[in-house]
Amino acid sequence: MQTKTPVGILGATGIVGQRFVQMLEHHPWFEITWLAASDRSEGRLYAEAARWRMKSPIPTRIAGMRVSAAQPEDAPRIIFAALDTGIAAEFEPRFAEAGCAVVSNSSALRMQADVPLVIPEVNGGHIKLLECQAWRRKSGGFVVTNPNCSAIGLVLALAPLEQRFGLKTVMAVTMQAVSGAGYPGVASLDILGNVIPYIAKEEEKMEEETRKLLGRLNGSKVEPAAFAMSAQCNRVAVEDGHTESVSVQLKEKAQREEIIATWNQFRSEPQELRLPSAPEQPVVYLDAADRPQPRFDADSGAGMTTTVGRLRPCGVLDWKFTLLSHNTIRGAAGAALLNAELLKAQGYLD
Amino acid sequence: MQTKTPVGILGATGIVGQRFVQMLEHHPWFEITWLAASDRSEGRLYAEAARWRMKSPIPTRIAGMRVSAAQPEDAPRIIFAALDTGIAAEFEPRFAEAGCAVVSNSSALRMQADVPLVIPEVNGGHIKLLECQAWRRKSGGFVVTNPNCSAIGLVLALAPLEQRFGLKTVMAVTMQAVSGAGYPGVASLDILGNVIPYIAKEEEKMEEETRKLLGRLNGSKVEPAAFAMSAQCNRVAVEDGHTESVSVQLKEKAQREEIIATWNQFRSEPQELRLPSAPEQPVVYLDAADRPQPRFDADSGAGMTTTVGRLRPCGVLDWKFTLLSHNTIRGAAGAALLNAELLKAQGYLD
Amino acid sequence: MQTKTPVGILGATGIVGQRFVQMLEHHPWFEITWLAASDRSEGRLYAEAARWRMKSPIPTRIAGMRVSAAQPEDAPRIIFAALDTGIAAEFEPRFAEAGCAVVSNSSALRMQADVPLVIPEVNGGHIKLLECQAWRRKSGGFVVTNPNCSAIGLVLALAPLEQRFGLKTVMAVTMQAVSGAGYPGVASLDILGNVIPYIAKEEEKMEEETRKLLGRLNGSKVEPAAFAMSAQCNRVAVEDGHTESVSVQLKEKAQREEIIATWNQFRSEPQELRLPSAPEQPVVYLDAADRPQPRFDADSGAGMTTTVGRLRPCGVLDWKFTLLSHNTIRGAAGAALLNAELLKAQGYLD
Amino acid sequence: MQTKTPVGILGATGIVGQRFVQMLEHHPWFEITWLAASDRSEGRLYAEAARWRMKSPIPTRIAGMRVSAAQPEDAPRIIFAALDTGIAAEFEPRFAEAGCAVVSNSSALRMQADVPLVIPEVNGGHIKLLECQAWRRKSGGFVVTNPNCSAIGLVLALAPLEQRFGLKTVMAVTMQAVSGAGYPGVASLDILGNVIPYIAKEEEKMEEETRKLLGRLNGSKVEPAAFAMSAQCNRVAVEDGHTESVSVQLKEKAQREEIIATWNQFRSEPQELRLPSAPEQPVVYLDAADRPQPRFDADSGAGMTTTVGRLRPCGVLDWKFTLLSHNTIRGAAGAALLNAELLKAQGYLD
Repeated sequence: MQTKTPVGILGATGIVGQRFVQMLEHHPWFEITWLAASDRSEGRLYAEAARWRMKSPIPTRIAGMRVSAAQPEDAPRIIFAALDTGIAAEFEPRFAEAGCAVVSNSSALRMQADVPLVIPEVNGGHIKLLECQAWRRKSGGFVVTNPNCSAIGLVLALAPLEQRFGLKTVMAVTMQAVSGAGYPGVASLDILGNVIPYIAKEEEKMEEETRKLLGRLNGSKVEPAAFAMSAQCNRVAVEDGHTESVSVQLKEKAQREEIIATWNQFRSEPQELRLPSAPEQPVVYLDAADRPQPRFDADSGAGMTTTVGRLRPCGVLDWKFTLLSHNTIRGAAGAALLNAELLKAQGYLD
Repeated sequence: MQTKTPVGILGATGIVGQRFVQMLEHHPWFEITWLAASDRSEGRLYAEAARWRMKSPIPTRIAGMRVSAAQPEDAPRIIFAALDTGIAAEFEPRFAEAGCAVVSNSSALRMQADVPLVIPEVNGGHIKLLECQAWRRKSGGFVVTNPNCSAIGLVLALAPLEQRFGLKTVMAVTMQAVSGAGYPGVASLDILGNVIPYIAKEEEKMEEETRKLLGRLNGSKVEPAAFAMSAQCNRVAVEDGHTESVSVQLKEKAQREEIIATWNQFRSEPQELRLPSAPEQPVVYLDAADRPQPRFDADSGAGMTTTVGRLRPCGVLDWKFTLLSHNTIRGAAGAALLNAELLKAQGYLD
Repeated sequence: MQTKTPVGILGATGIVGQRFVQMLEHHPWFEITWLAASDRSEGRLYAEAARWRMKSPIPTRIAGMRVSAAQPEDAPRIIFAALDTGIAAEFEPRFAEAGCAVVSNSSALRMQADVPLVIPEVNGGHIKLLECQAWRRKSGGFVVTNPNCSAIGLVLALAPLEQRFGLKTVMAVTMQAVSGAGYPGVASLDILGNVIPYIAKEEEKMEEETRKLLGRLNGSKVEPAAFAMSAQCNRVAVEDGHTESVSVQLKEKAQREEIIATWNQFRSEPQELRLPSAPEQPVVYLDAADRPQPRFDADSGAGMTTTVGRLRPCGVLDWKFTLLSHNTIRGAAGAALLNAELLKAQGYLD
Repeated sequence: MQTKTPVGILGATGIVGQRFVQMLEHHPWFEITWLAASDRSEGRLYAEAARWRMKSPIPTRIAGMRVSAAQPEDAPRIIFAALDTGIAAEFEPRFAEAGCAVVSNSSALRMQADVPLVIPEVNGGHIKLLECQAWRRKSGGFVVTNPNCSAIGLVLALAPLEQRFGLKTVMAVTMQAVSGAGYPGVASLDILGNVIPYIAKEEEKMEEETRKLLGRLNGSKVEPAAFAMSAQCNRVAVEDGHTESVSVQLKEKAQREEIIATWNQFRSEPQELRLPSAPEQPVVYLDAADRPQPRFDADSGAGMTTTVGRLRPCGVLDWKFTLLSHNTIRGAAGAALLNAELLKAQGYLD
């Protein structure tokens, strides 16, 4: 019998940390052996330290584990990191320096020149960038990141278009779920019956991460994609699933049916390698006039598929459409998990 | 003592009809003397025929009025119409033909060449178009309309920019309140914790009405404004207040402070004439980073003011911002009421 | 290979009809061969006639079936009925008369003296009552019903207490989900940010059905249980899952731990017979101070388990507690399905 | 011209503190001259220290005031206190000791034997209890409190029944608004589409405060009312307005119309004295089958009126009904304000 590879979770008690616990429960390759969180949680049982907000029950084995100190000394080599940005900026380098493979969901290092920002279906080749990291040369450790929850769904829908037709311009307006703000996150008094037209730094992240993800790796750096882009981010009273109204201008003329086929036929390395968390179909076009909707479509492909709908001509750019992506699965824990699976398939975790 | 002018309401039992009743309760010029609705309601007490959904109590005098048949024979000359489109297409011409001044909130005749589509602050001059109507010549009757609830807030924000800087391109994504769909309207199972990225015909209305409103009256027709425009419309779990994420390209270069001043200083005929329902300030810019929000700002200027915020450069067009407008006040009953006040001020109701 | 028993659904396009379709998709014993709905739907493809509101996709085979006329002529023997009360009162007898085994979720016949009202874990023996039906003697057809969605969770929590300690008094206040009202059902304008303290006839149903369910079959009639009971029913902005605040007075003194054990150990015929839809544990007590909650607990036991929590002394009666039950699974389609499984196990469907 | 009496607010930046600011803006007797909050806010402008959550704009004069240290040295004599319980237990005695008249909304001292717990319409006479406070004798200072937001609406509905018919038993199940938990308070992930059947210490407060409020002042102590009582408290996704499903047993037989008349005719000292914040009618019975509802009725009597509806026989006790009370107006700031007005009318603030 094959033994599983031990992994740890940094920031295990938050919403994204809980998603890692949930998604790793029956993972065929990885097994949680270490959980760390803030000092306040250290030494407590995980079931007591975490205010469990997932709908499936907390896995029994994990519930009884003690929360470790956030120190690399006793940590396993592979670390999933779900830390707040400020803390991540301090802790992720420390773990990489100590030789850990840090697979991070934080925004802290995403835009650093030598840190790969990766969606396996889109730019798996950018992983090579980690060879440029000083940590890698010193201790074998490294940091690989996944994008923001609002960027990842967008980029999954854009990548097939960019590959096939080329992108000139992208405009996106988001309607984002409250789980994206963590727990306790958004106060109920702020969002019940309301829209908040502002999420701090979100628009900046969407714009620059999208360009890095669709950029070209050139030796030791990624040249960002050159298209014009603008994002507007709103918070709405939805639990899970970011909806986005998008308009694009393409370099080449495209027919509606060609675009739909391009989305539906899009497959990439994770699908070819049959990575455990890879959805069969990364992008699914829905024909119904009023879809995708968070209630019905956020869990498509176990939360790893981006659903798209309402493709129609745009009076300003070429085409407009609506997309939806699960923000704490494909937009966070599932994204990092798929990154780890690709790293393992490429031999970086041996 | 001055007696008030009698007015009637066609479609008095629906959500917009109820807003008319509420807004006319203490109106200084107009007094409701006639209420009509579908056959089902005819002859019943208004309090029984209408499922009252306003937050203020149903006015006692109106509660005890009988609902009349929807026939022009006994109707007063001034008719506020809040009918569904299909029915409006049949009934509004019938009342106009019989000599009524029909001030309509319906979409049925808005785009008809000889029907004025008016926001008093924006294009009050278009009212003259009613002189081209055959009804006018025949019986003195006419139809004047106000725009869709999603167009009116947008156009109030755009008009000062068009006048001062000129508009080249407009993109708008809406997050619309459920009251816009009437009552019962949107099923709770469809919108609780959800976003619906589709409202039938809404995008088409927004695009064409915006151009007609900002167009130029040229003899017997309105030449639509020439800028490029694209709208995407979504329904969210908000009771009242449509929020819109907008991007614009201007003909002339503008500084951020100039644009804000242009909005805040925008005044027009209704303000000069001190029309009873005219807000002191049609457009108000809010400085806070996270405003406007439906919860706090939908009722600005008694629901007649469009609030704007978050003006910042756009990576694709020139500027982007968020706007908010009360959809059943400025977006429906209040819009028609202000139209009627302007008509009266211009002598068309004598 | 064993072939499955063909079943039909009357009222297949509504919310409960859709639940039947969803729950029967992979059923080991039953297979849908016939779908009927109102005249409006007759002859249309099911996928077009039903506005599908389940979260799992519509089963492909069913999507392509034609909706039949609601006539017993071509219907299979076993009919799951999900009709509105008024229509059920007319159609269910017609199908029973024609020889069908009607397993009904409607309230129309529940309180009729010769119609079994059954929860398999609680009063499976009442099924014998169907032998008293004239339809049975004439054509072999019969009607068996399950209780209202607000009664069933309550009775599942009360039955073990009644059996072990005896019940003297029951008071229940409900907070019911919108899916209980069907689709379109509750208007979003009525429930967003609101509570509606009234559901027509619901309190009467809860009170009389609870007594019939916990009553004793005595020859050709059920003697209702004798305890005092009072129900108050409210609608809240929850999608699925009815929550109830309950107080009870017992005939015998009970310790808190005894009551909890009585719930957790409660098993009955469906569990012994391993009926396909029977939950392993019909009642589960949750220790956490703030559970059960619809978000986390409505799906317990695939929606067939009643969760209970917060057992504590009551200042007026003996004990008070909170319970939760999934209203369209255990409270409707799942209840009927389990009834059908018990009927089959008892030989009534041969 | 009469000058207004200066008042201060302790805990001015929280939700209840903001309600005080809002309700005192145009108060005929009192004028805010001092605002204090936690150390973190000290010295900052109120507009910056408070995250303003009221729907009316922050009053300009108050916005520009500096937040003072929470020390009695510079405070005015009359202090409205809106502190968290733990902090109130420390600060309220300190201010009373220094000679302040502390009109408190906190639960810290409510059940202390020599502290009046008062609803002016119900037990204004209890105010005399403050003469027993050591602070009063030493410095002239004292503490008067108002009840919990869930108790006050209930007691306003019970008091007329107690006076007229006598109460034997009371059972209440609440559905409480999120604003009752302050800001940020309830996390949106906890309440969107959910019910939380637990509010820490709320049931205990409701039960003991109700008995103290309806108790009899006997020299230096209040003898609590003797009826049996049980409360169950739930949180629902409502912004403002606690709804309660109540059952009562009366000492004397009562007819339905008598009870309704008793509620509608209930008047008391605040109405006779025409205190500025006293509602014309403290309890209003609504005839409609489905009222009261938070959306429509929470603001009755400017938020100071308790609305009652659905009076019908109870199968266990005598009568059951639904009541609604605004939790941050009558349930907090408005309650304290009315207490202060009564104190002033009785000469305690001179």
